[in-house]
Amino acid sequence: MSKRQMIIGMHLGNGYGSQPGAWRMAGVDPRSYTSFDAKVRQAKAAERGKFQFLFLPDGPSQVVDVDEEAPNFNLDVMLTLAAVARETSRIGLVATGSTTFNEPYNLARQFKALDLMSHGRAGWNAVTSSGEDVAANYGQRLPSSAKRYGRAHETVQLVQALWGSWGQDAWVHDQTSGRFANREKIAPINLHGDFVASRGPLYIPPSEQGQPVIFHAGGSPNAHELAGRYASAVIGASFTIEDARAQRTAFRNAAERAGRDPDEIKYIPGLMTTIATDRRAALDRRIAMTERLFPQRVNYLQQMLGVRLDSTRLDRPLSREQLAAASPSPRDPRSAHALAIAREGWSLRDVLAHGVIDYHPVIVGPAIEAADHMQAWFEAGAADGFWISPDVYEDGIDAFVDGVVPILQERGLFHRDYEGTTLRDHLGAPAQYGLDPRVSR
Amino acid sequence: MSKRQMIIGMHLGNGYGSQPGAWRMAGVDPRSYTSFDAKVRQAKAAERGKFQFLFLPDGPSQVVDVDEEAPNFNLDVMLTLAAVARETSRIGLVATGSTTFNEPYNLARQFKALDLMSHGRAGWNAVTSSGEDVAANYGQRLPSSAKRYGRAHETVQLVQALWGSWGQDAWVHDQTSGRFANREKIAPINLHGDFVASRGPLYIPPSEQGQPVIFHAGGSPNAHELAGRYASAVIGASFTIEDARAQRTAFRNAAERAGRDPDEIKYIPGLMTTIATDRRAALDRRIAMTERLFPQRVNYLQQMLGVRLDSTRLDRPLSREQLAAASPSPRDPRSAHALAIAREGWSLRDVLAHGVIDYHPVIVGPAIEAADHMQAWFEAGAADGFWISPDVYEDGIDAFVDGVVPILQERGLFHRDYEGTTLRDHLGAPAQYGLDPRVSR
Ligand SMILES: Cc1cc2nc3c(=O)[nH]c(=O)nc-3n(C[C@H](O)[C@H](O)[C@H](O)COP(=O)(O)O)c2cc1C
Ligand SMILES: Cc1cc2nc3c(=O)[nH]c(=O)nc-3n(C[C@H](O)[C@H](O)[C@H](O)COP(=O)(O)O)c2cc1C
Repeated sequence: MSKRQMIIGMHLGNGYGSQPGAWRMAGVDPRSYTSFDAKVRQAKAAERGKFQFLFLPDGPSQVVDVDEEAPNFNLDVMLTLAAVARETSRIGLVATGSTTFNEPYNLARQFKALDLMSHGRAGWNAVTSSGEDVAANYGQRLPSSAKRYGRAHETVQLVQALWGSWGQDAWVHDQTSGRFANREKIAPINLHGDFVASRGPLYIPPSEQGQPVIFHAGGSPNAHELAGRYASAVIGASFTIEDARAQRTAFRNAAERAGRDPDEIKYIPGLMTTIATDRRAALDRRIAMTERLFPQRVNYLQQMLGVRLDSTRLDRPLSREQLAAASPSPRDPRSAHALAIAREGWSLRDVLAHGVIDYHPVIVGPAIEAADHMQAWFEAGAADGFWISPDVYEDGIDAFVDGVVPILQERGLFHRDYEGTTLRDHLGAPAQYGLDPRVSR
Repeated sequence: MSKRQMIIGMHLGNGYGSQPGAWRMAGVDPRSYTSFDAKVRQAKAAERGKFQFLFLPDGPSQVVDVDEEAPNFNLDVMLTLAAVARETSRIGLVATGSTTFNEPYNLARQFKALDLMSHGRAGWNAVTSSGEDVAANYGQRLPSSAKRYGRAHETVQLVQALWGSWGQDAWVHDQTSGRFANREKIAPINLHGDFVASRGPLYIPPSEQGQPVIFHAGGSPNAHELAGRYASAVIGASFTIEDARAQRTAFRNAAERAGRDPDEIKYIPGLMTTIATDRRAALDRRIAMTERLFPQRVNYLQQMLGVRLDSTRLDRPLSREQLAAASPSPRDPRSAHALAIAREGWSLRDVLAHGVIDYHPVIVGPAIEAADHMQAWFEAGAADGFWISPDVYEDGIDAFVDGVVPILQERGLFHRDYEGTTLRDHLGAPAQYGLDPRVSR
């Protein structure tokens, strides 16, 4: 029996990397935001590292302060992946597509076309979207969670039914007999829900993996139910092993309730990395990128630790009195880790440079620290893999690929090459074409 | 003063060519329907011919008899053009996008992203869609023409406003100062119509041509009004010089009513071509592809000519009595041409092989006949150019490029090379960013 190995995805965002200051770093092309060449190079770097997939989040809205920061997202996730599909050969291509703000027919068509284009490497991160700013771009208020998830269930079912509407061997294309397709193996779907409907058929034959793989991202019980029925993988956000394990269990249980084998759903939390030869070099790299934001982050760190801190004295470690008085806030799961770092005696600047207030767990240090973190979570049943958000494209990807990947491979925790050609192969996801007959409607 | 020259576009459809039997022809890859490689090769052939643009129609629905014919459309027009954008450098990229079945924000984002990706070569054929089969894919009945065109006006305005929401010099991306963008030059649009609304901004800076060019396709007075306000080019369908001239005049008049120079709107009717060394070889090529459909077409030809015809005697020309009794049907603008061909003494099979019942005027013959047709229409004020629908990709494109294009160039009717790099350059369309201030809302 081969040992269970981890899945690694890479966050492909605005073209610069996950840190707000990444776009200013030396060696970074400041035009990467609009450069499809840059995105293709970054995808190739991840493919060199044998990553199973790229993950492209999507709002869409412009929420950051663009005076100083790049917008968070790709110009358009599907067009980016179209370029990447043509210029890579193995890595999976997972784009976020909102079930709330898209027509099911349009989603079905574009994702299945991407699946054909990439020869079976497409995945759809089906999310319900959040944020009034996103809804406003569609002239709407954000519907309630119940309504969004209601529509999401219908939308995923419609999309999968449309994907299956051209039967798997319907496309004959036999020039001699003149038979193009077998009409008897093509059927409209005629699905009508409370929120969405479509007749079909969608005129696209199967890809090398049949149809795209469903991903989901969300943390509520509604999210567990949706993913439990349809998703092969979950894009997660957990700060601790305990939380990750609980999330993973919740998704696995939901899959079982839907009549599936819990191993069919992979829980993949995020991990941000700044890899350098040693901790000091890595901290300095982070400081160069994000120090500008530290004064406001000090304010937030105060709340996490429950003590007053002085943002004008970033050079100093927390005093003995501050450390004694500090206690981690129960309202922020990152607080205990932040306090532990502070207790190691780092200056306030270095505490913040450790990424203690970032969106995901952060490794700032040598490659082996990232490998150790990943191994610990993986072996504790907290993760089936990770989606990596490198601090800066492109050398942040290379540092991970050349540093962390070989250690994981050496330890037998990560594959040395792709086992197959499709995203289903990479994830070990079972074959599926059309709706999953085990999942009740 | 340089002489006025014609614009040429190429229809890029299902990957085979415009004739129903194209997919069966020798030398055609029967898998072209799902092959993005094939589409890219076809686009390159058109670019070799210095065509100003590719035109991709879109339904989306599956209306043909797929037992024998390929569906009409690209798997997905935007993903096809993304591939083509990366692998060509000059040719314009015009995709059809329905104003009835898409959210304006999604249209705005994807077309502007394509414009960035192609360095200023994108065009949006903004159509209202027709057909209950299309509407059914969105769980709807087709709205009335008034409602569809009402929504179309709002959608085009919203999309153009979103395109302009990042001011032309808003994107600073200065690594030294740390200024990413100038927030003061970015503004939400906050447009609310009767059908659609959006807040914005759309987080995409300008392309090399500012923003995509608007095309339109439609024949009614509503279509004239819409195109007159917003379109730089009209994808037309006219069978006679008189009709084309009337259509062209109607669009030009509508542009004038909207406060524009009528030369800003180009009327571009379709032309189908089967180019071969002589008429006989061209007819035989057509027969090989479409003869299977001739019996049913004979039925239709009877109605066009007002005489009984015998579909079992395709080898014979029409008799003297039939020709004497025939008179062109006023209900079909193709009828006079069909009768003229019949009077030349061709067999019934050859009459049909002339394409007298096709979607556009058809040239079946040597290259000079296509060039003569185009010159006659162009000089009669019936067209500013043509969109060519070759019978078969890819040798049907090559036959046009190597045969017709040099003749037109020799006559000074078609450019010898691209004058610029953007679609606006190719069309002579004036600069525009955001809404056109001359067009009233
Ligand atoms: C790790 C993670 C990634 C997410 N990525 C996206 C995204 O790319 N786009 C998006 O619209 N929402 C994204 N979401 C938000 C979810 O779509 C969802 O709207 C939100 O989590 C609220 O739903 P919930 O109550 O089920 O958690 C993400 C959520 C998580 C946890
Ligand atoms: C030459 C031509 C090409 C067209 N191409 C498309 C197309 O690609 N997709 C589409 O949905 N409709 C297309 N249409 C249909 C128009 O969108 C429109 O729905 C139809 O012409 C009815 O509108 P009207 O009454 O203004 O003519 C086309 C129409 C014409 C004349």
